[in-house]
Amino acid sequence: MADATKTANNGVNVQHLLGAKEALTATPAAAQFQWRATCEWKDGVHSHSTVEKFFGLGAEQARTKTFHFDADHPAGFAAPDAGATPVEYVLVGLASCLTAGVASIAQYRNIQLRSVSATIEGGMDLRGILGIDSDVRNGFDGIKVSYKIDADASPDEIKALVAQSQKRSAVYDIITNPTNVTVEVK
Amino acid sequence: MADATKTANNGVNVQHLLGAKEALTATPAAAQFQWRATCEWKDGVHSHSTVEKFFGLGAEQARTKTFHFDADHPAGFAAPDAGATPVEYVLVGLASCLTAGVASIAQYRNIQLRSVSATIEGGMDLRGILGIDSDVRNGFDGIKVSYKIDADASPDEIKALVAQSQKRSAVYDIITNPTNVTVEVK
Repeated sequence: MADATKTANNGVNVQHLLGAKEALTATPAAAQFQWRATCEWKDGVHSHSTVEKFFGLGAEQARTKTFHFDADHPAGFAAPDAGATPVEYVLVGLASCLTAGVASIAQYRNIQLRSVSATIEGGMDLRGILGIDSDVRNGFDGIKVSYKIDADASPDEIKALVAQSQKRSAVYDIITNPTNVTVEVK
Repeated sequence: MADATKTANNGVNVQHLLGAKEALTATPAAAQFQWRATCEWKDGVHSHSTVEKFFGLGAEQARTKTFHFDADHPAGFAAPDAGATPVEYVLVGLASCLTAGVASIAQYRNIQLRSVSATIEGGMDLRGILGIDSDVRNGFDGIKVSYKIDADASPDEIKALVAQSQKRSAVYDIITNPTNVTVEVK
């Protein structure tokens, strides 16, 4: 159970989050963000993506570092396996989004976390992307996430943390609901 | 225009893909894949994910390497910026999936690629994830992908490559259509 006599420290700055909530309530224009990546084809199905700048709080935001990502197919697909597959990047996005949510909500609820780990599995019938059966979708036929959490909280409090994280997660929303994507060639 | 007297080489093994298509048409059970990741909470909203094994072709598949990914929030969110944000991982997944598709389809159509690059942008109103306005979704309000492609092909042939890649892309499907996600606590 959360112990009101102790202050949990999960490394999340809740005061900053609450300050941001107050500021963006007053100034909705500052809440309009744009996240970005660039992708360069290397060879075969191997590509290299970079993540650096984004727009938000009414201005261009630059990081002090750039993040690099190789994507490829595994050796069994006659590819050099130079990186994770694109669909595995989606799983990383979902697992990390839900995990960040668990930590943030635990902090807000004064629950000390000791460890949080998740396994995530996405089923896929390859007859979709290979164009064998038009009734089979290209993407995942379902995703299952399983958490193990050690925290100063009851099992019900831990389940409630995970449930609230799903409710507030950006990537959970992206995957469970449709998003409009436009693709253009310049 | 694609030149029928030349054989394009984009590094994609089309014969292997066609062989896989034939084999999985004959043995649908082998087409049932499961892609996976594991995620460990580090501190704050920083997590570390790994991608290694998957299931497919009727058996557990092991890679000779493991891919590692840190996810975090940027400095402006009072976080150490130890990795890309979860939603940026989704953008990397989509851009790399569409780019792999462009290369594969170009190979199949005997179109020599010289360079392919994409920029991808996802708009997001942070009033959603911060719980300021329940009418604002948590995820992207839309995604825009823009390609620059230099290839031995007409502008219409290049546009057709990108259009076909969207049609066959796993991640494009995942983002534009809903997927069921179950989350459990063990």
